[in-house]
Amino acid sequence: MPQFLPRARLRGLYVITDARSGGGHLAIARAALSGGARILQLRDKDTPLPELVPIARQIHRLTRAANALFIVNDRADLALAVGASGVHLGPDDLPIAAARRVLGPHKIVGASCGTLEEAVAAFRAGADYIGCGAIFGTQTKLDAGDAIGLEALAAIVRATPLPVAAIGGVSPANIAATREAGARMACVISAITGAGDEAAMTAAVRELVSRFDR
Amino acid sequence: MPQFLPRARLRGLYVITDARSGGGHLAIARAALSGGARILQLRDKDTPLPELVPIARQIHRLTRAANALFIVNDRADLALAVGASGVHLGPDDLPIAAARRVLGPHKIVGASCGTLEEAVAAFRAGADYIGCGAIFGTQTKLDAGDAIGLEALAAIVRATPLPVAAIGGVSPANIAATREAGARMACVISAITGAGDEAAMTAAVRELVSRFDR
Repeated sequence: MPQFLPRARLRGLYVITDARSGGGHLAIARAALSGGARILQLRDKDTPLPELVPIARQIHRLTRAANALFIVNDRADLALAVGASGVHLGPDDLPIAAARRVLGPHKIVGASCGTLEEAVAAFRAGADYIGCGAIFGTQTKLDAGDAIGLEALAAIVRATPLPVAAIGGVSPANIAATREAGARMACVISAITGAGDEAAMTAAVRELVSRFDR
Repeated sequence: MPQFLPRARLRGLYVITDARSGGGHLAIARAALSGGARILQLRDKDTPLPELVPIARQIHRLTRAANALFIVNDRADLALAVGASGVHLGPDDLPIAAARRVLGPHKIVGASCGTLEEAVAAFRAGADYIGCGAIFGTQTKLDAGDAIGLEALAAIVRATPLPVAAIGGVSPANIAATREAGARMACVISAITGAGDEAAMTAAVRELVSRFDR
């Protein structure tokens, strides 16, 4: 059976396995996929790469079995080394065009954007999707700036043809609103990792998915 | 005129443009090449990549004009993005086999080794050269461990067929001894960056080259 192209799969719940927020990468990944998440991102700037590479390989195996996407934060070399679907780039990471050169045309390159101008620049530089936020207040990323809100999200959705992932303070209470504002993906970290053990995380993912997917 | 294969050029003075030790990457690079260095390594884990990419591109241009090699520390993606000759990997960086997968067979992969066992493992994992040290005491890299000395260097040189770069405390007083011990390259950082302005750095490089190359 032919696989969908990766870009067509840029939709649904997008879980970031940020180990600093507790839970551990693999437990978060398993819970996310069991609960119905469609995209996983490995974000870890602290763990030495010799330890991170085997973790990334295991997440890759899990996502492939679930037909989900696997995105690596920042490191295009790590993404290539483990066969991930692509990378997500923040403002201090490799520039979009440089990552595209490294990864080629078939890998996914996502970019964090907080303003219309950044979104248009990311589109022009060749990004495949935009991570837009922080939409609501968040405690996971202290440097994410003030919340931009749902209207700004809707404006960024309209600014380019790229699919947009809403990020920052997404919870069961507000995830449907991000979809209404046009987000094709919704990113969660602490809404999952704060849930407790793996079963509780799976339940949290399932609830978020049920409110977002349709 | 045909270029030598990169690996055949793994010889001579090897200058690391460590910005933390003062001088600035481009000033060190210009001085190193003017003075006769054959290999430059960009080592910088602090500067955000959007700033580092243009610096890397400029160093790449300088090394190409001088027919010198350009090695990037740690980031195989940055090396690919700017067309560098290869990467140098420390113990917390991407594993050698993973970097090789990312870079392909024609790029250079160097690995830091402090023991015979690490050198043999690096050879088996597919490294192209070994950075061996710290040979003498050094203040540039506080985590480099105790100096291993010239006899350990000679033993590591004999342990694999790979060319070895002596690193750590290399100075005009001892650089010839590293050559006598079998090192095909000698790495310097503070011996250059501590020299003063660009002209003084060039003179320092020239003296080191005159004592090492033959």
